[in-house]
Amino acid sequence: MKSLPALSPKRRKTKVANKPIIVLVRPQLGENIGKAARAMLNFGLTEMRIVNPRDGWPNPSAGPAAAGADIVLDSAKVFSTTAEAVADCEHVYATTVRKRGVTKPVVGPDGAARLMHEQPGRHAVLFGREASGLETDDVALARHILTVPINPQFGSLNLAQAVILVAYEWSRIGREHDDGELVQPTAEDEVLPPAPQDDLEGLISHFEKMLAPRGYFLPEARRDATLRTLRSVLTRPGWNHLEVRTFRGILSTLERAKRQED
Amino acid sequence: MKSLPALSPKRRKTKVANKPIIVLVRPQLGENIGKAARAMLNFGLTEMRIVNPRDGWPNPSAGPAAAGADIVLDSAKVFSTTAEAVADCEHVYATTVRKRGVTKPVVGPDGAARLMHEQPGRHAVLFGREASGLETDDVALARHILTVPINPQFGSLNLAQAVILVAYEWSRIGREHDDGELVQPTAEDEVLPPAPQDDLEGLISHFEKMLAPRGYFLPEARRDATLRTLRSVLTRPGWNHLEVRTFRGILSTLERAKRQED
Repeated sequence: MKSLPALSPKRRKTKVANKPIIVLVRPQLGENIGKAARAMLNFGLTEMRIVNPRDGWPNPSAGPAAAGADIVLDSAKVFSTTAEAVADCEHVYATTVRKRGVTKPVVGPDGAARLMHEQPGRHAVLFGREASGLETDDVALARHILTVPINPQFGSLNLAQAVILVAYEWSRIGREHDDGELVQPTAEDEVLPPAPQDDLEGLISHFEKMLAPRGYFLPEARRDATLRTLRSVLTRPGWNHLEVRTFRGILSTLERAKRQED
Repeated sequence: MKSLPALSPKRRKTKVANKPIIVLVRPQLGENIGKAARAMLNFGLTEMRIVNPRDGWPNPSAGPAAAGADIVLDSAKVFSTTAEAVADCEHVYATTVRKRGVTKPVVGPDGAARLMHEQPGRHAVLFGREASGLETDDVALARHILTVPINPQFGSLNLAQAVILVAYEWSRIGREHDDGELVQPTAEDEVLPPAPQDDLEGLISHFEKMLAPRGYFLPEARRDATLRTLRSVLTRPGWNHLEVRTFRGILSTLERAKRQED
């Protein structure tokens, strides 16, 4: 029996960031290439390919617009045709708003991101020229149409915005798959837990002691209901021990003042 | 075969779009206000509020940058303080990358979008000045921190990009709900939404007025920090208007007693 090939590297493949390649097809302005690079790097994408840029490459306007994402621009590769740019890629997506009578599966940025993380192989996303988008021959290279579902009454995404949505989703879905390399906003875990119940009871009693002699719980027949309301209002927040302590301080302040005025 | 029962009105209730209000706090360039409007309308958001814009309002640079999203700019409302801008909102999110030592729950654009679609009431998202972001006092108004999880080595989101990610997620999650996959927990329907922000402000001021003459905010150098802590403790619970009213009653009781004893 042959020794088994090491399983883990392959199994872990989808945990390794399967970064899509961003392909800008015949972009017009260097500034927009820079902005796309910036959008990419915000979410950890680094590989850009440029097909036949109108103003040549490198383009002096790209750098300033990239706002520091030089690593993306410096390693960008230029191709003369879209076919060459995606020749080594297993999965090609054509970003387009319009249906062009091409029958291909349509995915959103989220669906595309799922495929990127689930399907082995290199994924490339084509983005067309600013003014006119991808041409039919570019779209024909793709297995999927990537459409950002926008407001049918107002669709006005620019190149960098389309890129950032794809990059954002790649990153977001990646975090769903694993704990990823990007910063995860962890919902509640940095927030302190609620204070122990006896801290809370202490706070409730403190309120009671201050309120009772001032007639808050009158008439007597309503006492229990009023107390329940008070308890409920103070219980709901789930205050942590620091917050409960703050509140105890507030009550003490109010008490102290009263004593001063006696 | 019986006819299928009609989907109950209660179940469908959540299909009504609960659009967040985009609040730009002290924005600098009109161009960026226009770009934010464009970003919003791409995903169907229309309500913009502007707090104390540096160059006044209307701003002639905003229109061209909005690329046709005039409906957003034309109906934008200007406020002189952030507190006024969110006075009628039940849910306030502060968009910020940095932790500022404020312990509030942190959500991403997706988590925020889920809350917008699931929690009744008006949702407002605060975005800070281009160069410097939100100030601590703005963040203090919010119940949630909204953080876009970006590349820790390169975080360079501009205002319109942050806005577009929030708008995109609102739209995306809304479609998930519409597709019927996410069934709204009916419990939410029975929970009252948090009180509008100005009710909460009333409560905070009430505390302030009672505490200040009793020296709670001394020493003066700590005044702002103490006030923020007070605000934070009172903001976190998300009390509904009945609960806020209960608390106002408690404070009035404490005041009344004091007067009797004078």
